[in-house]
Amino acid sequence: MDPGFSLRYVRDDGAGRRPGTKSRAAAVTGSLTIVGLGPGTAGWITPAAQAALDAATDLVGYGPYVDRVPERAGLTKHASDNRVEVERASHALQMASEGRTVAVVSGGDPGVFAMAAAVFEALEAGPAEWRALPITVEPGITAMLAAAARAGAPLGGDFCAISLSDNLKPWEVVTARLEAVLAADLVICLYNPISKARPWQLGKALDLAAKHRAVTTPVLFARAVGRPDESLRILTLAEAVAAASTADMATLVMIGASSTRLIAREGAAPYLYTPRSVAKMPCATSQGRT
Amino acid sequence: MDPGFSLRYVRDDGAGRRPGTKSRAAAVTGSLTIVGLGPGTAGWITPAAQAALDAATDLVGYGPYVDRVPERAGLTKHASDNRVEVERASHALQMASEGRTVAVVSGGDPGVFAMAAAVFEALEAGPAEWRALPITVEPGITAMLAAAARAGAPLGGDFCAISLSDNLKPWEVVTARLEAVLAADLVICLYNPISKARPWQLGKALDLAAKHRAVTTPVLFARAVGRPDESLRILTLAEAVAAASTADMATLVMIGASSTRLIAREGAAPYLYTPRSVAKMPCATSQGRT
Repeated sequence: MDPGFSLRYVRDDGAGRRPGTKSRAAAVTGSLTIVGLGPGTAGWITPAAQAALDAATDLVGYGPYVDRVPERAGLTKHASDNRVEVERASHALQMASEGRTVAVVSGGDPGVFAMAAAVFEALEAGPAEWRALPITVEPGITAMLAAAARAGAPLGGDFCAISLSDNLKPWEVVTARLEAVLAADLVICLYNPISKARPWQLGKALDLAAKHRAVTTPVLFARAVGRPDESLRILTLAEAVAAASTADMATLVMIGASSTRLIAREGAAPYLYTPRSVAKMPCATSQGRT
Repeated sequence: MDPGFSLRYVRDDGAGRRPGTKSRAAAVTGSLTIVGLGPGTAGWITPAAQAALDAATDLVGYGPYVDRVPERAGLTKHASDNRVEVERASHALQMASEGRTVAVVSGGDPGVFAMAAAVFEALEAGPAEWRALPITVEPGITAMLAAAARAGAPLGGDFCAISLSDNLKPWEVVTARLEAVLAADLVICLYNPISKARPWQLGKALDLAAKHRAVTTPVLFARAVGRPDESLRILTLAEAVAAASTADMATLVMIGASSTRLIAREGAAPYLYTPRSVAKMPCATSQGRT
């Protein structure tokens, strides 16, 4: 009476090995772990992620993430450009199939708009023998959690994470999704808000938000959280529309729900938070809410 | 030309202290940190979170989370019931205002359906002097990231996190939000899916999902991820509807998007993943998709 494919995991060293790993150890010596480095600071790299980095013979990833891992004897770094995720993933799988202990690194969490999905895309399209490899994902602190923590508790209610990049999905899908979550009054975390090749999407998204939410709704621009150049700005939605071009690829943009608000403090930055309680759904108008 | 309240953070020891902390250090000696323990295993507690636990004189939280922190000289534990978040938060703030170094602990991430919002609710309602306290949030691995990592990469596309608890919001709000994100084809992470006091909500939510998504859509029931009794089940949506009552409060339920799928492996559990690419929005029917 428990239908479906039931998986039961055996926890060993906290590194989250999947079932089947041990029984295949004799035949398959290589492995691949997709490791989340968290955003910026070493204080946010979990011990399990660190253990995976320490065990690796080969490190694969976008240059700036690979650079965050110190050089050491026995570790070969394979840094690549930002735009070749599936090629990078295939290279990592190939090395693992040749017996290497490979770590693919992502900033933040590897499962959130990062390398984990690219690895499974490459696995699905690749040679059948790759499927015998032990593949582990080590989660990390994703940007929206770090940004929220720095600001207060803006994710206190229901929320969503949407990538504004239209490289991999039509812009019509992005806008349809934004319309839906705006109407549903979720807090909205925008990943990949803007880049040189995609300069206008964030402005359009914020324009759309201003049609559904009060122009005084708080919007958080959290840039480079956890890095020395970290900065946080809390704007009103109206101000955010005007400031859209000041965001960049290192910025996490968070649009508050109708209940998201500030707690003022004397001589210090306010806290931003969303209460846990919701009385009812807000009513949207085409002129925005007031 | 940079409107709004601009906050600039100074990173020091990675523990994420807010601006204003240092200038107030002479006047205010107590502090409060809301710490995310991650889900279950010590391998997922970040060094920054561990540092906050090590510095604390007082530990406040729901009993099972407080129990996860080892006893030591100089640390007083204040464990409480699951249902008294704001009282617990007020107690923590009060102790901090009396000069204690207080850590409020949550499982997972404290900002996601956990203690951070409760602390800011208590702060907003409490005495003005509490606002002078240095309050820090230390992020953690939230359940959906851990569950996704164990299963593969089901959060490879846009996704949302919704609490099914109707203790703090009307059920009508929950269903309106579910309808919206189902139509928008987001992967849906359901927190607090079921409890003894709320036995039917998960079944209703899955029924609703079956009206929008194919009955073959993968649904993940990830229970106690990171704990010794961890188990993962990947069901079809039809099977999940039938199995709703087998979930509990320790279960994270994840409903796939239209593109979420399995990668089969011989003799091992399949991987669950959502490709990064979206061709177009799926068309829903009232009979569900096929």
